[in-house]
Amino acid sequence: MATKVLLIGATGETGRSIANGLLNAGGFEVYAFTRAASVHKPQLLDLEKKGVIIRQCDLTAPKEELAEALKGIDIVVSSVGPSDQHIQHNIATAAKVAGVKRFIPCGFITICAPGGIMWLRDEKEKVYNHIKQIKLPYTIIDIGWWYQIATPRLPSGKIDYAMTTSNDELIGDGRTPSSFTDLRDIGKYVAKIIVDPRTENKMVFAYNVVMSPAEIFDTVERLSGEKVERRYIPEETVHKRVAETRASSETYPFEPTKFTARFVAEYQLSWGIRGDNVPEYAKYLGYLDAKELYPDFKPILFEEYVQELLHGTATGVYTDRISRIY
Amino acid sequence: MATKVLLIGATGETGRSIANGLLNAGGFEVYAFTRAASVHKPQLLDLEKKGVIIRQCDLTAPKEELAEALKGIDIVVSSVGPSDQHIQHNIATAAKVAGVKRFIPCGFITICAPGGIMWLRDEKEKVYNHIKQIKLPYTIIDIGWWYQIATPRLPSGKIDYAMTTSNDELIGDGRTPSSFTDLRDIGKYVAKIIVDPRTENKMVFAYNVVMSPAEIFDTVERLSGEKVERRYIPEETVHKRVAETRASSETYPFEPTKFTARFVAEYQLSWGIRGDNVPEYAKYLGYLDAKELYPDFKPILFEEYVQELLHGTATGVYTDRISRIY
Repeated sequence: MATKVLLIGATGETGRSIANGLLNAGGFEVYAFTRAASVHKPQLLDLEKKGVIIRQCDLTAPKEELAEALKGIDIVVSSVGPSDQHIQHNIATAAKVAGVKRFIPCGFITICAPGGIMWLRDEKEKVYNHIKQIKLPYTIIDIGWWYQIATPRLPSGKIDYAMTTSNDELIGDGRTPSSFTDLRDIGKYVAKIIVDPRTENKMVFAYNVVMSPAEIFDTVERLSGEKVERRYIPEETVHKRVAETRASSETYPFEPTKFTARFVAEYQLSWGIRGDNVPEYAKYLGYLDAKELYPDFKPILFEEYVQELLHGTATGVYTDRISRIY
Repeated sequence: MATKVLLIGATGETGRSIANGLLNAGGFEVYAFTRAASVHKPQLLDLEKKGVIIRQCDLTAPKEELAEALKGIDIVVSSVGPSDQHIQHNIATAAKVAGVKRFIPCGFITICAPGGIMWLRDEKEKVYNHIKQIKLPYTIIDIGWWYQIATPRLPSGKIDYAMTTSNDELIGDGRTPSSFTDLRDIGKYVAKIIVDPRTENKMVFAYNVVMSPAEIFDTVERLSGEKVERRYIPEETVHKRVAETRASSETYPFEPTKFTARFVAEYQLSWGIRGDNVPEYAKYLGYLDAKELYPDFKPILFEEYVQELLHGTATGVYTDRISRIY
């Protein structure tokens, strides 16, 4: 019998990777809750065409109503937007009532300890604490920084078709190691992790490669034959950005133009300066390592992604809302 | 070569258990930092007599100064008072600078998830997050509710000599299972846990027995032959106590008369109503189980403690400051 998985936030970048990962893996019946407002979104129709069963549902409905809608669902996977973390409390409570066997809250960020470094990480921690308080079986999955937003622009404009930003910044000397993941591999990892008894009530770090941003730039340069522009950002500039964006977002924490700037700066602080986003630190924090859990998994290597980019066959991210996010 | 262990809060009930546990286990050189104000405390002189090396040190000193004082220390074990959790930030930072191999922050409470159930648990979580942010090797040790404060009074007054409170309350029907520990066993567990490579960067739950408070009362009754008074406290009374003490402690969170009432009420909520303080929940939260780590460890059973009590050979707790705590 197929495992019934409900996706929350299925139309986002991570959500679509997860939907594809589950559908391609087989053995899953994939459902997606969507708001009435999103029912005609092209990404949703696309998912429906691929076999995802769409259910219109308001996540802020009373928990009894939500629990009714969750009946028969084995696993819930949430990949809600950065500013929507708090809406998971209600659905987690309903999942407990409905007897959902495992709840995957929206992790899907880089490795960082909670407690004041990254606002986005702390928003997630509140959800995790709620899950733990209601004793709901869970798995938290965090990931490397996407290849899709790590790659620098080429002067020829050849890969602009798949670029979200010009991305010419290197923090400090750019040599702080960090973990990177192809967005498309996230769903493939998720398909393995959520049915794995070893990962129940655990955190898992699923990443593809460990490289420094400078090595990312070097690789693009080497494979393209073009000279990549590098803008070195001193650490004090990042600290200044963090301080400024924190100050301006305190007043309106859920105003996207404020918090997006804030969590971009805090990401740079965490993986660019603190060096948090590495497997050793993930292990220290209690994460299982997906590479050790699935030694046969063949992740897309960064070089492979760059070749796709250069061949014009890669797909950009946030293409529908770049102006909102960046 | 002996492992050099520094104790913070060595003169408290938990601290003295730890000092005794380390000294009796052997292989440890035990140090205690103490404030100038505490240097003539009888408990401190007693520890010194037993072999603890006392160093006068101000925990609020600049971290470089503290790091100098920590030179050569392998392991720091903290068992500071409930209202002193925050002072651990500074010593943890200094321990990182000094290259301390493992830091045991002040856990030593019952099992509870962070995030708004127990103020005391949340104060500790802030320290844990700080430790994780500075990437300091750590072990968190939590414990069962002490036998020494779980036992009800006998009408004959026979065990009053070792009583902290009259302790006649049973929450709800008193049948919520909970974990209990003899205070003296904590130090014995600590001596094993802090040098165990399996417990590095982990949480460990060290408890003796799982019983319900009603079974605790029944056991005392059975072994003493006396009728024990039982005052049943409805769950709504506990919820009311929690709400009231939270309201009154919000204004003065570090005022003992306020926060003590608060955390006593919140303890009752956590172990008495929520049923948090059990090994299954500890495992769910990520704790290792000391019984599985040390299957040969022979904990003092509750019946054994009661026999001591009845024979007049038990030792009470907080005898020097009952009026302050209760």
